[in-house]
Amino acid sequence: MAEHPGFTVWLTGLSGAGKSTIAQHLAQALRRRGMKVEVLDGDVIRQNLSKGLGFSKADRDTNVLRVGWVAQVLSRNGVAVIAALISPYRETRNQVRAKIPNFVEVFVDAPLEEVIRRDVKGLYKRALAGEIPNFTGISDPYEPPERPEVVCRTAEETVDESVGKILAYLEQQGWLLPEQA
Amino acid sequence: MAEHPGFTVWLTGLSGAGKSTIAQHLAQALRRRGMKVEVLDGDVIRQNLSKGLGFSKADRDTNVLRVGWVAQVLSRNGVAVIAALISPYRETRNQVRAKIPNFVEVFVDAPLEEVIRRDVKGLYKRALAGEIPNFTGISDPYEPPERPEVVCRTAEETVDESVGKILAYLEQQGWLLPEQA
Repeated sequence: MAEHPGFTVWLTGLSGAGKSTIAQHLAQALRRRGMKVEVLDGDVIRQNLSKGLGFSKADRDTNVLRVGWVAQVLSRNGVAVIAALISPYRETRNQVRAKIPNFVEVFVDAPLEEVIRRDVKGLYKRALAGEIPNFTGISDPYEPPERPEVVCRTAEETVDESVGKILAYLEQQGWLLPEQA
Repeated sequence: MAEHPGFTVWLTGLSGAGKSTIAQHLAQALRRRGMKVEVLDGDVIRQNLSKGLGFSKADRDTNVLRVGWVAQVLSRNGVAVIAALISPYRETRNQVRAKIPNFVEVFVDAPLEEVIRRDVKGLYKRALAGEIPNFTGISDPYEPPERPEVVCRTAEETVDESVGKILAYLEQQGWLLPEQA
């Protein structure tokens, strides 16, 4: 494996906005460059790191800070970390940012109407029916980033376009290894 | 930083047996070889990863498995991980072992009488007075490893000797980089 400075790409956005899909495609693109990559996805994290935590503000914050700590430790060891979490609170994301030198906040921006229309997991329907408390965008707030490094508008662009924007940013910073033959 | 296969050195033993001291000295020795090193120490972990967990068997197991997951992710990315946790339950340590390819279980073995005599943090005195419930070795079990890769008898050997044993094992496995000038 070649060496590159570690960094953390932090994908934040509503449930169903496309964070996991971008994370997987971005991971593939980075691995093609021979880079060490770890994807910290919300679901995997809740299984391994945060079982028992719920979706109150305090529990969400705890979860986000834990993932932030793991991302920090991994990226300072030269790993390209991709975190895909709703992480709805601005202040908490900024706490994570403050700890990680090469931090790239990516706002995965899809209009609420659009994610409700898609409703991939059928969660919005249940949330709108009042069956899921503390559901981000419905019964819980989402605070968009104020100065994200990258914005992906997934209702208007393809996955490749979104991933391309992130790669371009990483390239600009000099953090990207060249693609391998 | 040079490359080496990641591995996890897991130090298990009673409170006061010398796990943290060995961890720090081992970390220095590995860093002198230009290796990437992370120490996952019980206290740091409880702060960043496991705030709110107590010392029941279930909570201890959760804590150990979380640290195991972080060690797994770090070591598969070429980091030399040193975990220093009481981790009193054999079965739970074996669950961690099963997930990490290059796993080195180090039994930091000091007789109970000896750690009670030292009582660096004054905890044994309080535990013996019944002031601390679930205290390993006093009011909670400690299950020694059955086939640890290395045993450090800290009542009989110096820190350098203990660290030397671990380095010798890592050397034998071909996981050690040569010391740098």
